[in-house]
Amino acid sequence: MNKNIPDKVINRLTLYHCILSDLINKNEEYVSSKQIAHLLHIDDSQVRKDINLLNNSGKSRIGYFVKDLKTSIEKTLGFKKTKKAIIIGAGNLGTAIANYGNFTNYGLCIKAIFDNDLNKIGKLINGMEIQNIYEVHPTVKKEDIEIAILTVPAQYAQSTANFLVNAHIKYIWNFAPVVLSVPDEVQVWNENLMGNFLQFTYNI
Amino acid sequence: MNKNIPDKVINRLTLYHCILSDLINKNEEYVSSKQIAHLLHIDDSQVRKDINLLNNSGKSRIGYFVKDLKTSIEKTLGFKKTKKAIIIGAGNLGTAIANYGNFTNYGLCIKAIFDNDLNKIGKLINGMEIQNIYEVHPTVKKEDIEIAILTVPAQYAQSTANFLVNAHIKYIWNFAPVVLSVPDEVQVWNENLMGNFLQFTYNI
Repeated sequence: MNKNIPDKVINRLTLYHCILSDLINKNEEYVSSKQIAHLLHIDDSQVRKDINLLNNSGKSRIGYFVKDLKTSIEKTLGFKKTKKAIIIGAGNLGTAIANYGNFTNYGLCIKAIFDNDLNKIGKLINGMEIQNIYEVHPTVKKEDIEIAILTVPAQYAQSTANFLVNAHIKYIWNFAPVVLSVPDEVQVWNENLMGNFLQFTYNI
Repeated sequence: MNKNIPDKVINRLTLYHCILSDLINKNEEYVSSKQIAHLLHIDDSQVRKDINLLNNSGKSRIGYFVKDLKTSIEKTLGFKKTKKAIIIGAGNLGTAIANYGNFTNYGLCIKAIFDNDLNKIGKLINGMEIQNIYEVHPTVKKEDIEIAILTVPAQYAQSTANFLVNAHIKYIWNFAPVVLSVPDEVQVWNENLMGNFLQFTYNI
């Protein structure tokens, strides 16, 4: 469980997981590394190498057992170990993330969503009432929440991050295009959409 | 310009660019690799190594010239070489991306947004009228567009991708949690938010 799996492999494993979920919906029992590789336009030796990192015994002569491989990825990446999070910012991006149903399958449980806009507070998103930002502190304490998903506009990102640090949040998943300054004990993952786009289009 | 810069470095360079933009707003003239490294909680030797990949002459005894370093990153990553794109799906995510003003600074020019929901068509997002999905083909042809940003719900992602392939789109930036099957000549970049999240939280 605690093998050190490189970031890129974790990313690919979640894509394999998407493919396997789709195959289960189609009642497919087996899948080959070639099939997976073909869908992702990568080399099948890469797929086999990644799968070898799992504790997977589900390999037969005609391919991997779809269900076993899927379970094996879930175990390795800890999908069952639920991580509780809150969303800060009930704009379009925060709403999109709150509605992104797929997260729960991967062990991300969004417990609450907050905003400071009085016109939004009290409205429902995916069954959750948008709460006043001042409720963050008691909610984090009561629900023992460590992760905040930050989806406020860029100009409010740093002040909101300071607020989250004071509320004892330990991990910030930052969607604002701003590099946040936080104490060493707080970890930030910059979603950096533009960086992702440039990786994609750099060679166009 | 055509040096082969690894994905992770491209990603970091866009984060440095964020920091430099912020420093310019604060009228700072110089920045050290240590300052940048501190904000990103990485090693300063890494920052210097990344910057050495740029054609940057703006180093002085007291640090890099902020403006020169920013321009140098822009040149290297081709921010001025504008890439035209369309958004498919005017839901919360599509709307968030259309409103994400920062993209234009990085050379991503969103030309139009499409949906098949008659209740949405004709409404404005960031000055753009939401168009009927049937307008994709003529728009792509007329505007010479190669990139589509796919923000439709998961269950419509594959059929929409097929539609985009028929409309001669060459690059799909896919935000749906689905692995798309496309011909070899079309490139897909899976945003894979869940994979990113798991990379972040894997060691929590």
